[in-house]
Amino acid sequence: MTLDLGLIDEAVAFLDGQVRRTPVEPAPLLSARLGVPVYLKLECLQLTGSFKVRGALFALSKLSEADRRHGVATCSAGNHGIGLAHAAHRLGIPATIYVPAGVDEAKLRAIEALGARVVRSAFSGYDATEAWARQEAARAGLPFLSAYDDPHVMAGNGGTVAAEVLADVPEARTFLLPVGGGGLAGGFGFYVKERLPDARLVACQLAASPALLRSLERGAAVTEMPPVETVAGGLEGGLGVLPFAVLRDRVDHVALVPEQDLREGVRWMLDHHRYLVEPSAAVTVAACLAGDVPPPAGPVVVLLSGRNVSLATLRNILA
Amino acid sequence: MTLDLGLIDEAVAFLDGQVRRTPVEPAPLLSARLGVPVYLKLECLQLTGSFKVRGALFALSKLSEADRRHGVATCSAGNHGIGLAHAAHRLGIPATIYVPAGVDEAKLRAIEALGARVVRSAFSGYDATEAWARQEAARAGLPFLSAYDDPHVMAGNGGTVAAEVLADVPEARTFLLPVGGGGLAGGFGFYVKERLPDARLVACQLAASPALLRSLERGAAVTEMPPVETVAGGLEGGLGVLPFAVLRDRVDHVALVPEQDLREGVRWMLDHHRYLVEPSAAVTVAACLAGDVPPPAGPVVVLLSGRNVSLATLRNILA
Repeated sequence: MTLDLGLIDEAVAFLDGQVRRTPVEPAPLLSARLGVPVYLKLECLQLTGSFKVRGALFALSKLSEADRRHGVATCSAGNHGIGLAHAAHRLGIPATIYVPAGVDEAKLRAIEALGARVVRSAFSGYDATEAWARQEAARAGLPFLSAYDDPHVMAGNGGTVAAEVLADVPEARTFLLPVGGGGLAGGFGFYVKERLPDARLVACQLAASPALLRSLERGAAVTEMPPVETVAGGLEGGLGVLPFAVLRDRVDHVALVPEQDLREGVRWMLDHHRYLVEPSAAVTVAACLAGDVPPPAGPVVVLLSGRNVSLATLRNILA
Repeated sequence: MTLDLGLIDEAVAFLDGQVRRTPVEPAPLLSARLGVPVYLKLECLQLTGSFKVRGALFALSKLSEADRRHGVATCSAGNHGIGLAHAAHRLGIPATIYVPAGVDEAKLRAIEALGARVVRSAFSGYDATEAWARQEAARAGLPFLSAYDDPHVMAGNGGTVAAEVLADVPEARTFLLPVGGGGLAGGFGFYVKERLPDARLVACQLAASPALLRSLERGAAVTEMPPVETVAGGLEGGLGVLPFAVLRDRVDHVALVPEQDLREGVRWMLDHHRYLVEPSAAVTVAACLAGDVPPPAGPVVVLLSGRNVSLATLRNILA
């Protein structure tokens, strides 16, 4: 199975009524700054607190009957784990979520509250935990669902959001996307460039963990990165192989955003639009505020991907 | 014109596609506390940051052609002012908003950014400002739109929200509503009790400004209350005459919520559902958390009415 428009259309039809059709709203202050109309895609208002529930629901719907009964495994300390636990609970599929040793306790409780089985690894980093989780899942005979390196996840996470954005803002020509593993940006970027070949994609990364930029420099996916200390777990780590295959010829600019700017992005969203977003999601707004956007080819859409930030972290950001 | 189901149905049809159809979501922790399913109606995600835009759009649509050209006036230091400014801007109607001397500067800027004319009174309190504003509007020949004491505003603000709630949670039988001037609760309560005579309405008030409770005790609307120091401007002040006529025989319980509990309600919503709500809106969640709800007659819906709180106030609440 490869990512194509047919798969994204199928994901759109499948998810209709199962997830929220999140709104788009104008951002007058960002418009004044960039000199073109700017809109926010408020995917931070999605069920489970992020876009990850889309790909999880679509990917789980593709499992065989036998796999549905037996269950599925994944590795995630965050939004993908919550999204998958929610999707599995709704579809009645047993889910095992492998998490790093130092998982955020609030996210762990959220995953357990959705009925998933949580298995903590002995490793603190994500990459080591995933390698171990894949072995454990294989030993238990459970299909392992990648958080981003999977065509169904890319179609569900990124493709369906892009389809909504183009329906709601057909005049948009520049798109700011957060990039971690690349599933969201890959699915979104593929759909947009197929529909609007003249569109521009701005990939927004954490400056301390620029896996996409490194991958573009090397001409190959950098799938592992040294762990860094950050409030934006969703932006940290390596890029997926499939996402890189999509993004390598489609990304027009990579914006590198320093940690401090993410914190300012969270404050800015609370101050000017009154929505809570998580630091990983604030990377796109932060790139706008820093002016790290090439001259826009028409109206701009800024994607806000989630709101799962702990009260302790928020307190720290506002202090 | 009086409030009836026909007027509410008309408002529902008029607002379709003009405002957000805000979602309802389960609140598992509140369900565990109350022993019945509890749902949150997330009207805090509405355009302009609160339900007020509904009544403003519907009421302005009822103006004569001459009044639309000449303009409309109102008095508000908050959500009604923002909602009306938005509605007037969209309909191309000039709007004059009279505000108290000590208006919050962030809200004032939000109103001005929407193109409305703002006139600051010499009075610090709301009641004195409104009395003066009505005189000024009459002198200028502008129709004065009350924030709550108006059947169109009640139908738009409360009735249409109730219609959405009953469509999304038809099994709900207990409803927690914030009460300030009573426009929202009046329209909501009227619709629900017509459709479900066995439903229970819990009116949630600021303990320091309990106009509805005083009105029920006296058997007449208490339309003015002494000003109090509070972060919940939307809950302060007197009750409208029309809302009282609706609510007097329909409210089953009045929950009085102290100021400190509002702050805890704002924190609880951020911590457990990850939405920003304003302190006035948190009054319903706070009543739940305090257990100040009579034994529920079936599933409960908790209304969250808005998110317009300044960053400075939020910082103070989280500190």
